[in-house]
Amino acid sequence: MNGAESLVHTLLAGGVEVAFTNPGTSEMHFVAALDRLAGMRCVLALFEGVATGAADGYARISGRPAATLLHLGPGLANGLANLHNARRAASPVVNVVGDHATYHRKYDAPLTSDIEALARPVSSWVRTARSAVEVAADGAAAIAAALAPPGRIATLILPADTAWQKADGAAARRNPPGRATVPSAAVGEAATALRAGAPEILLVGGPGLRGRGLRAAGRIAAATGARLMAATSNARIERGAGRVAVTRIPYVVDQALAMLAGTRHAVLAGAKAPVAFFAYPGKPSRLLPEDCAVHTLARADEDVAGALEALAEALDAAEGGVPVQARVAVSPPSGALDSDALARAIAAAIPENAIVADESITAGRSFYAATAGAPPHDWLQVTGGSIGCALPVATGAAVAAPERKVLCLHGDGGAMYTLQALWTQAREGLDVTTVIFANRAYRILEHEFAGVGAGAPGKRARDMLALDRPALDWVALARGMGVEGVRVDTADAFSTALGRGLATPGPYLVEAVI
Amino acid sequence: MNGAESLVHTLLAGGVEVAFTNPGTSEMHFVAALDRLAGMRCVLALFEGVATGAADGYARISGRPAATLLHLGPGLANGLANLHNARRAASPVVNVVGDHATYHRKYDAPLTSDIEALARPVSSWVRTARSAVEVAADGAAAIAAALAPPGRIATLILPADTAWQKADGAAARRNPPGRATVPSAAVGEAATALRAGAPEILLVGGPGLRGRGLRAAGRIAAATGARLMAATSNARIERGAGRVAVTRIPYVVDQALAMLAGTRHAVLAGAKAPVAFFAYPGKPSRLLPEDCAVHTLARADEDVAGALEALAEALDAAEGGVPVQARVAVSPPSGALDSDALARAIAAAIPENAIVADESITAGRSFYAATAGAPPHDWLQVTGGSIGCALPVATGAAVAAPERKVLCLHGDGGAMYTLQALWTQAREGLDVTTVIFANRAYRILEHEFAGVGAGAPGKRARDMLALDRPALDWVALARGMGVEGVRVDTADAFSTALGRGLATPGPYLVEAVI
Repeated sequence: MNGAESLVHTLLAGGVEVAFTNPGTSEMHFVAALDRLAGMRCVLALFEGVATGAADGYARISGRPAATLLHLGPGLANGLANLHNARRAASPVVNVVGDHATYHRKYDAPLTSDIEALARPVSSWVRTARSAVEVAADGAAAIAAALAPPGRIATLILPADTAWQKADGAAARRNPPGRATVPSAAVGEAATALRAGAPEILLVGGPGLRGRGLRAAGRIAAATGARLMAATSNARIERGAGRVAVTRIPYVVDQALAMLAGTRHAVLAGAKAPVAFFAYPGKPSRLLPEDCAVHTLARADEDVAGALEALAEALDAAEGGVPVQARVAVSPPSGALDSDALARAIAAAIPENAIVADESITAGRSFYAATAGAPPHDWLQVTGGSIGCALPVATGAAVAAPERKVLCLHGDGGAMYTLQALWTQAREGLDVTTVIFANRAYRILEHEFAGVGAGAPGKRARDMLALDRPALDWVALARGMGVEGVRVDTADAFSTALGRGLATPGPYLVEAVI
Repeated sequence: MNGAESLVHTLLAGGVEVAFTNPGTSEMHFVAALDRLAGMRCVLALFEGVATGAADGYARISGRPAATLLHLGPGLANGLANLHNARRAASPVVNVVGDHATYHRKYDAPLTSDIEALARPVSSWVRTARSAVEVAADGAAAIAAALAPPGRIATLILPADTAWQKADGAAARRNPPGRATVPSAAVGEAATALRAGAPEILLVGGPGLRGRGLRAAGRIAAATGARLMAATSNARIERGAGRVAVTRIPYVVDQALAMLAGTRHAVLAGAKAPVAFFAYPGKPSRLLPEDCAVHTLARADEDVAGALEALAEALDAAEGGVPVQARVAVSPPSGALDSDALARAIAAAIPENAIVADESITAGRSFYAATAGAPPHDWLQVTGGSIGCALPVATGAAVAAPERKVLCLHGDGGAMYTLQALWTQAREGLDVTTVIFANRAYRILEHEFAGVGAGAPGKRARDMLALDRPALDWVALARGMGVEGVRVDTADAFSTALGRGLATPGPYLVEAVI
């Protein structure tokens, strides 16, 4: 058994069963090990940002880490933007990055770079394997590090000779640390704050947006009158009919300030005190009122769901009778394909148990509210603000849950960063329907230009924010990667196309010209 | 004048006249400054790796730095792989990376990351602007740092408030340090080595592959019998009919060892002692024989061309009668589109003064030799080994030299990393003919798999090296980005398509199915 084989055995023993790969020469022994050992599903990506984003999406749905396989420093670099998003999503990911053989590094061959330095800004754990016999233990440590609460990025750098030299065997699974129980004082402080009767919010994140955490949050809100809210962007929200509804803080600062005005107590459970996405001249960075008291019930890495249940008990919040979202049937729209028609068509189309990967940005500002009464589904967002996230996330989510429909809602500007994801969807036959909102502009930047006080954009500035010269043909781009698609510009055609995509297995793309 | 305007004025005063941009909110004031101030050509890219690779190509042809405009840490991260290549090419580049306003960073908003840490592995100079009044001086320092020999990557991080607050004015151009004259002892040592009469090579790089440096190298080789050679990959070689011919060291280690066997003296001028691109079990990292003496005439950052001229004088090498490459007319091939036909068709098609950006990898192993007798042209390669380089490099080269024909030779695997470059070519009407060699595989990895001793690839491994499920349709991909193209699979059709692309202004793509 060589080092690479010991690592693959260790990954499988540790519950890592999917690898999103874009290998090169230095990774060939790892590829050979994947070849010989059954059990690891290998999903090839044609760009590393697809591999890392897919690992993020896989983790968000499965709760388990996937491996990525990346080629030296530049390969890791291409995956960093979506690792940044994955880090903000608290997704466990185990990166395996090949490097030159240990004895070859001193020659500074062309691909040599400081891989550890590149990995550190996005990784909670970075290690370079020192010898083949240590690789298995390194791999077990990487998995444990990725699974450490709340979910982290672990990067193991694998010099080629540590992959090809003889190893002793696999390493056993190492149990990651559990989520720490929240001190009773924190529960008590939160209970006191929520009993005060002053305007208050309960801001939840992570496990507070799913399952028992979300149900407990709903009990607390019902018992106290606190508003139940979440950050602007979240890794995953369980929502739709029959579930406790959560209001998201708006992206636009003035809207967020208006929504939070008057709040006297904010209780945080797996969430941070809300801040503006960007700074704007003359506007605050913090979104809560200055006289609002902030109480941390549970940090993101603590037992958020348990803390919410403890708080519900402390408040004597009833277990039954918690208001949940009603099913709201929406009929598909007709006529022009405006913002309202898009929202209604999507609300009408979301199937039961769907996964929605949302990077619709400006086109989709109304989608979240409009789809509240759809059948139960998961809503995944761009957590780190780095666009080019949802196409890969949808890809990984579909790998994690082949029995579920995945709907990817994507602005055209953002989709261009990682369009190679479509090829992986075609190759793997993934059941993803992608909607590209083709406004043919970085529309958000047209708003932001004025928002930061830069005035009205002139000719050169408009040109740098416009994607209409030439217009992108998304149906051709999809076809080029083996994905069928259609272009639509009316509400009726959009609904038909969406229905066709969701009803038919495999990937499909709808270019909505708006 | 605000900080952003002071920076644009400073860039223009410092000779930076092109910006390859992919901006976001934090860069809007810089975009507004580009809008208001005439003189800067702004070229939009839809992915940051296109922007940085284009800056590399622009620098290789113009000798001057372009600016890039990138959006916080993730935007820089997406550009790092081609900055790695640019660093290895010794291309001067000035990155301007927007960041959150200084007072906003402590809130850890979603896009916050350690930008300096991400920049350092590829940058010789990194600075974060501290205030608007210092931005102009920072910009002048960045340009000087980029122009410091041999050409470097300078990264200036621009917090949003340092862009929007009031500045004092532009900063004057700062003269970068010149290339240091090589000590006469180094010239003497090289002369003695080359007079020894033992088998010897003169290995040149950087300015030794162009203009007067190349001519002096030719004189030295002619006078001493030394073999004139270059590294496997080079930023730019002036070659073709009427120029001194340079032999490149092969990529394949066994071929390189065979070529260099018996060499007793190696004189380095702007080049490093050759090493294997990757390590292979049982093969050496160093390619020169163990008993070969290595003499450094000039480091890459020293006056390479001056040192070669001094050495030619020291050797009394004649100025006239230096052998140059003869023009070799090649007739276009017919029949099957095999490796020989591809090479002949390209040799027949290269126009006078063309720029060839070569990332053909396995398909193009014979192209360099086959095109030696073409009309004079420049040959640009992937210097850092990170694929996805040539499409952006060709884009930037075409911006630098609108009067020249650019021919981009690209493997299909590598082209998928930065295919967004085609859109920028369409938008700017750049005169680039791209050939995609569609072998529908990471063919090089099929060789490397065996080369590193991993045996014969099995089903899963072959699957991870194959791009044929589904086959990419490059004509559709190009059309999707506004570039016309054609698919060919015979030698005749390939020659016709190549001729059509090179004869017609604007971008064109030829998918050669091989």
